[in-house]
Amino acid sequence: NLWVHYKKHDGIIVRGSKVHISEASISDEILVVPNRALQKGEEAYALCFAVPSDYEGIKQVVHFHNFRKREHYQKPADFGYTDSYVIFDDCFVPWDRVFLCGETQHGGIAALLFALFHRHSYSGCKPALLDFVIGLAGLAAEINGIEKAPHVREMLSELIMTGELGYAAGYTASDLGKPEVYVPGLGFVPYGPGSCIPNSIYCNVGRCLTGEAVYHEQEILCNIAGGLPATFPYEKDLTNPETKALLEKYLTRNPKIPTEEQIKFWLTFIDFNLSGSSGSMLYGSYHGGGSPIMEQIAITSQYDLESKKDIVRAIAGMTPRQKRK
Amino acid sequence: NLWVHYKKHDGIIVRGSKVHISEASISDEILVVPNRALQKGEEAYALCFAVPSDYEGIKQVVHFHNFRKREHYQKPADFGYTDSYVIFDDCFVPWDRVFLCGETQHGGIAALLFALFHRHSYSGCKPALLDFVIGLAGLAAEINGIEKAPHVREMLSELIMTGELGYAAGYTASDLGKPEVYVPGLGFVPYGPGSCIPNSIYCNVGRCLTGEAVYHEQEILCNIAGGLPATFPYEKDLTNPETKALLEKYLTRNPKIPTEEQIKFWLTFIDFNLSGSSGSMLYGSYHGGGSPIMEQIAITSQYDLESKKDIVRAIAGMTPRQKRK
Amino acid sequence: NLWVHYKKHDGIIVRGSKVHISEASISDEILVVPNRALQKGEEAYALCFAVPSDYEGIKQVVHFHNFRKREHYQKPADFGYTDSYVIFDDCFVPWDRVFLCGETQHGGIAALLFALFHRHSYSGCKPALLDFVIGLAGLAAEINGIEKAPHVREMLSELIMTGELGYAAGYTASDLGKPEVYVPGLGFVPYGPGSCIPNSIYCNVGRCLTGEAVYHEQEILCNIAGGLPATFPYEKDLTNPETKALLEKYLTRNPKIPTEEQIKFWLTFIDFNLSGSSGSMLYGSYHGGGSPIMEQIAITSQYDLESKKDIVRAIAGMTPRQKRK
Amino acid sequence: NLWVHYKKHDGIIVRGSKVHISEASISDEILVVPNRALQKGEEAYALCFAVPSDYEGIKQVVHFHNFRKREHYQKPADFGYTDSYVIFDDCFVPWDRVFLCGETQHGGIAALLFALFHRHSYSGCKPALLDFVIGLAGLAAEINGIEKAPHVREMLSELIMTGELGYAAGYTASDLGKPEVYVPGLGFVPYGPGSCIPNSIYCNVGRCLTGEAVYHEQEILCNIAGGLPATFPYEKDLTNPETKALLEKYLTRNPKIPTEEQIKFWLTFIDFNLSGSSGSMLYGSYHGGGSPIMEQIAITSQYDLESKKDIVRAIAGMTPRQKRK
Repeated sequence: NLWVHYKKHDGIIVRGSKVHISEASISDEILVVPNRALQKGEEAYALCFAVPSDYEGIKQVVHFHNFRKREHYQKPADFGYTDSYVIFDDCFVPWDRVFLCGETQHGGIAALLFALFHRHSYSGCKPALLDFVIGLAGLAAEINGIEKAPHVREMLSELIMTGELGYAAGYTASDLGKPEVYVPGLGFVPYGPGSCIPNSIYCNVGRCLTGEAVYHEQEILCNIAGGLPATFPYEKDLTNPETKALLEKYLTRNPKIPTEEQIKFWLTFIDFNLSGSSGSMLYGSYHGGGSPIMEQIAITSQYDLESKKDIVRAIAGMTPRQKRK
Repeated sequence: NLWVHYKKHDGIIVRGSKVHISEASISDEILVVPNRALQKGEEAYALCFAVPSDYEGIKQVVHFHNFRKREHYQKPADFGYTDSYVIFDDCFVPWDRVFLCGETQHGGIAALLFALFHRHSYSGCKPALLDFVIGLAGLAAEINGIEKAPHVREMLSELIMTGELGYAAGYTASDLGKPEVYVPGLGFVPYGPGSCIPNSIYCNVGRCLTGEAVYHEQEILCNIAGGLPATFPYEKDLTNPETKALLEKYLTRNPKIPTEEQIKFWLTFIDFNLSGSSGSMLYGSYHGGGSPIMEQIAITSQYDLESKKDIVRAIAGMTPRQKRK
Repeated sequence: NLWVHYKKHDGIIVRGSKVHISEASISDEILVVPNRALQKGEEAYALCFAVPSDYEGIKQVVHFHNFRKREHYQKPADFGYTDSYVIFDDCFVPWDRVFLCGETQHGGIAALLFALFHRHSYSGCKPALLDFVIGLAGLAAEINGIEKAPHVREMLSELIMTGELGYAAGYTASDLGKPEVYVPGLGFVPYGPGSCIPNSIYCNVGRCLTGEAVYHEQEILCNIAGGLPATFPYEKDLTNPETKALLEKYLTRNPKIPTEEQIKFWLTFIDFNLSGSSGSMLYGSYHGGGSPIMEQIAITSQYDLESKKDIVRAIAGMTPRQKRK
Repeated sequence: NLWVHYKKHDGIIVRGSKVHISEASISDEILVVPNRALQKGEEAYALCFAVPSDYEGIKQVVHFHNFRKREHYQKPADFGYTDSYVIFDDCFVPWDRVFLCGETQHGGIAALLFALFHRHSYSGCKPALLDFVIGLAGLAAEINGIEKAPHVREMLSELIMTGELGYAAGYTASDLGKPEVYVPGLGFVPYGPGSCIPNSIYCNVGRCLTGEAVYHEQEILCNIAGGLPATFPYEKDLTNPETKALLEKYLTRNPKIPTEEQIKFWLTFIDFNLSGSSGSMLYGSYHGGGSPIMEQIAITSQYDLESKKDIVRAIAGMTPRQKRK
């Protein structure tokens, strides 16, 4: 919801906002692109420009997602991320930073390519996150002494499947990439200056798989971890001389792993899965690049269904498509 | 892991702990019962007693789950809960508060009945929580303007199915209840002084359904809500004169509902689903009364599989069970 | 698609057909009722009557679903069923067999009650069929020597859950039954001469669960059975002196069960799950009483969603429903 | 279960059988390989040889899977397949056709490579079959007039996801292929004369996905098709002058598609999904190359879980693996 409010000789005044923008507060530049196909009459929305993220006329309302500070049980790095309501409050953008201003014909392709590259990135991002999730599941199982249990093996193989199928989709999308875009009804048509564009159907099926699996992954982690993370003592209780020895005795699950190691593991498990930031991470994974209903539309509209019907027509002895009227 | 450390003429000394005990810190009394079948030689664990929850010799390490305090957007009541590591640090219990001490033969039935009543309670508790979840889903859809969308209708009907099937399981378990327990191999046998015991198979299938559905319910809420809850502004930004009007403009989704109402809705949505306490609630629902793998064992061990094979034997013309050797 | 073609002084001429009618060819009487709400102008479809199934003017095109005849491996009874295209080819129905003729206001309730009772019957029918499926799964596991394997226990517990939750839904629908029907927007209103009408929401959630589970049940049977049923020898090969001993040697899985018993089991397993009739049975279970998309509509339209939103409004401190304008 | 019964100077006598062997009756040659790791003492099972499929001493008990013959509604080709119990009834194999005889050390790798190539072939075979399934679903939806319904779009996108993710897995397995095999505990080690061996983890996740999806695919076809295929008239009724016109009237769903085309479509739909052969095809797809439980073992045993735990250890500040004792 961002539009050109006013055109001047030396630039434009933009008004509106971009919501749910990850890491906008710590970026050097904010690049604004249209996010849907535009029609005649919508020229004010055919808008593309870049400005520094702390530019005059921009207000960012930031939500930060950090983990609970640690005192005793140190880890090598803090983790956190932010997202912003980026509000353009009649922000002036000089012409040399404006790339589109009124060219409605480019709205659709800008939206399509933004989504396509975002979805393609899931095939790298989510398998990497799954490596971490699989590591959490594996260590939780080891600490709980159930690493060889058949139901754990079943769940681990589910996690591995999601990660590796997502990676394979991205790999295939890259390897089949060409300087072409798929236009429903036309098929692949050349596009752009020659830079490689990943294959759209593999981008979409990979994103769909990995993006929509995140709640089931949380279920698997919960199943393997048991109740421990939900009731885990606070760091101050764990280090309080009056309770330290008793707590360590009663929360140790696997005698072969030092208790301090087990505590560090669970604190990190909690950070990523039961903290005030963990819910937001799931929302990001689930909706980023396109909500499930948008993905269904993308997949079916970018798929050549008629050619598959042709196979059936041939096998069934039906009249071929071109001959029917 | 709690046992009789020492017997005295006027009572017993108990040592050990009960972990993951909900609301133990605000209860008047703590009742300790065995949680598995016991064998000869395990007399020290055949232990049942009740003491006040702030009794001498008890240490509780408490984890509290409260929601973020509100200043401006008031709600009628705060919500929160606690759980405890209840540690019995050589706690003296006088004989008049000891109900079992060494009678191993009662371990199994105590564990079974504790689990059974806990599981039965899911058929009241979870449908009620689902009423709330369905309300959240319905209002989120209304605010987002998608209440009539087919994919939303599909998700609402899934939520309704879980709630009503869970309720029906509990209803049936109650209505078929008798002063009897099911003992694998023996069937139902009379038990207790005459108080009604709910039917075990319906308790278990109901608990399984509602307890294991919670992550899918979160997925549905996320799907319907969209990204808004993950990046929702802080209360201080929402009330800050510099940003209030802008934020209200850009976060309002449905012009028919007052913006302040929408804000109150999302803040409560976030409390229950994206807060530092929401992850723990899911763990409680998922594992309470028995983890999935324990439920599978309960269901199959309390089910008369042989009688079902008999049906097949009859239809297939096989030799009836009793005639085979 | 059946309507009154012509009214005469002594009766009516009906034209049209009822398709997919189970067992119409072996019924004594065919009862025709409207299957949707009717509006002014659709009087010809407001039609209810009963005639013998071999009545003049009726043509039935019958599809029969029988199993392969057995010669050697006898079973106590044959199984089979039929369905019909029942075509009314200008069939005359005398007035004393006509119950509705033009009263459009009864179309909706007739359709609703037909569906309701059909769906309620699923809660008896499908759990009984699941008893048989569970028996097949249990015996297949026993013959294959995997009855105690954890993944088999998991699948058995899934089957048991479907059957018992479906039964509980029907039980609850019956026990809460009253001479009332649920009308969306009005709630329950008295209906009929006093005969009990099962509670609609429990009828629907039970039917949905058991009707839509049938393909997953087939998957479980396939998983437990292994490849054997797909390549099982013909009866003539099993009894051919040249191959009998060799085949019995190589198809026996469990040495404790007589080979002839195992053969009878698999032949019956195949009849119900891999025969020319088994696919049609699944279609009947899946669509009977209402396809999944119709069930979603039924469940959401017969559910009081607003009262669930009220719970959220109260907890969130929003304005109560009645006070909003 | 096939072994060397007797060694002679000019060859060996083999006894035993291979069951569930697809198309063995129409193959030129039968190649026998070990199907599991072998230990010292199992030399008789370390057996590999090739003989013509109608060789002396071989008995094949064949199950053939053909479709109902058509008279009027012709199609360009018949479809069918066979499988066999291949029984080696003391079959003599001359030495020049024997490749392994007692070398137990090759059992494991022969089994692993057979399974690996079989599983890899799923990534070509199943996506091709899914093309056909998607064509069936698309035409059924078109004939039923629901091609644009949201719930149909959702199901089509599910089918497309399975096919394209399976294809991507095979593509990636091929592109990452090397003359190496993965040995749990050792990682990839060189193997063979230099021919390319597909990457094992991608072979397995692709096979798992496509092989285990077949029952859900049947559910989707059933959902879209409705009850029509289950009660479809016989060809003789469809061409019988007394019923032809009436049946065509009542089974036509889409007035834009010639009725004869619709009939041909449904007859082919039924052949592949509701016939006496369709159940066996599902069993072949589901268990071919490895049942689900074997796939879980393959995936988890060929996956480097410890390296994923290392990621967690690093992020959590735990002691690195190599430093622990």
